Amino acid sequence: MSGFVWLVGAGPGDPDLLTRRAARVLAEADLVLYDALVARETLGFAPRAQRFRVGRRAGRTAVRQETINALMIRAARRGKRVVRLKCGDPFVLGRGGEEALALAVAGIPFEVVPGVTSAVAAPALAGIPVTHRGLASGFVVVSGHAEAAYRPVLGSLAPGAATVVVLMGLATRAGVAALLLARGWSKATPAAIVLGAATESSHVWTGTLATLAEPSLPDSDAPGTLVIGSVVSLASVLGRDEPRASTAVALGQAAP
Amino acid sequence: MSGFVWLVGAGPGDPDLLTRRAARVLAEADLVLYDALVARETLGFAPRAQRFRVGRRAGRTAVRQETINALMIRAARRGKRVVRLKCGDPFVLGRGGEEALALAVAGIPFEVVPGVTSAVAAPALAGIPVTHRGLASGFVVVSGHAEAAYRPVLGSLAPGAATVVVLMGLATRAGVAALLLARGWSKATPAAIVLGAATESSHVWTGTLATLAEPSLPDSDAPGTLVIGSVVSLASVLGRDEPRASTAVALGQAAP
Repeated sequence: MSGFVWLVGAGPGDPDLLTRRAARVLAEADLVLYDALVARETLGFAPRAQRFRVGRRAGRTAVRQETINALMIRAARRGKRVVRLKCGDPFVLGRGGEEALALAVAGIPFEVVPGVTSAVAAPALAGIPVTHRGLASGFVVVSGHAEAAYRPVLGSLAPGAATVVVLMGLATRAGVAALLLARGWSKATPAAIVLGAATESSHVWTGTLATLAEPSLPDSDAPGTLVIGSVVSLASVLGRDEPRASTAVALGQAAP
Repeated sequence: MSGFVWLVGAGPGDPDLLTRRAARVLAEADLVLYDALVARETLGFAPRAQRFRVGRRAGRTAVRQETINALMIRAARRGKRVVRLKCGDPFVLGRGGEEALALAVAGIPFEVVPGVTSAVAAPALAGIPVTHRGLASGFVVVSGHAEAAYRPVLGSLAPGAATVVVLMGLATRAGVAALLLARGWSKATPAAIVLGAATESSHVWTGTLATLAEPSLPDSDAPGTLVIGSVVSLASVLGRDEPRASTAVALGQAAP
């Protein structure tokens, strides 16, 4: 009997936003290697599996990528059904491509199970469509973890040409804002910070590109998503303070 | 009793990539207004609902957006539980933001249920991660339906700065390629066309930016996703010919 690895997207947080396929694969898993931010309830879908937290989070010691790859490969070679459970979508940042490559090179059969990406869902649950007719016909997603990651894209994009979504950009938001302003974006461009989207501790701040670096945010481990562009102005009509799918009923009730 | 509207993402095609929340909401719906490309099996999750196809597809007469909005609002005012079921994610292109705005203005309570977007899943199921360390730290998603939609983004983005994903760009791919080449992208930049991702009739073509306009594609109504950037080269290791989640088992078996 040969093992198998699934690279699975857990979605943005709320277990309700897991795909049906992800839930089914978890139910049959022998081993689940999960990111730190995956919700406890989501892990409940894998009651019979051994579960190990392997994912990084900002500023903390983590299991090395090489170790994660080795754990997956070793377990699969022993015939185990392994789920590598990743936040959001497995192929949006987060090194899922490297994990897939390691499996392919080792000859381990695997499958990618796409998930709901926070790049789209975090804005959406805050009432911000990443595209909107007349406001944005496209969007850009970059990692904010280092300037080298976001500068090539944000330094060239014409001002206002697309909605900008920055994942892992809480710590570098002053640099992101400065770069866009230097590129010619208007100071008045609406901007938002979505913290912990699709979780119970979610929080949304809205302001402008000029004030993006200013707010002092709740002390939290929650991941943050920056959204920059005129679509952010829709949050005042479509959004609420708590962008969480399962409490987002009656989103529109506060509207006129 | 007050009605309610859910704007729900159906994902890229495979009913297995529906979220758990989408499936639950469909099960309780009285009325489902669905896009033309939503799979028949997906509609099966709403056995007790009236179901109407309202979505556009290329080159065909469709229900006007104003009519869709009016149908949702009228049914909700009559106390119905309405699901507006959209391909992919409801807020990635496809006018979901306009539908949400119409509901908010009409005072109809609603909720957005994010879905798996084809912009990420179509490449992924073809073995292409939209980001990959050393190759791309970000990606751009634009609509290819008209030059005015993609030119502001693609005309400014520095060559090779990010993976480019074009939805609804089958018909305009010659224009997309010409614009990028004129902007200074290399002719040798890997490029892919993913047709009908996550369906049984899926098909993947890979080539370069220089040849993107050339292939004669299978005669099909399937939606097409263009992917341009060095990450496309990973498809030769990570991909298969049929990017469909439920048949994508053993993706890695063909690798060395």
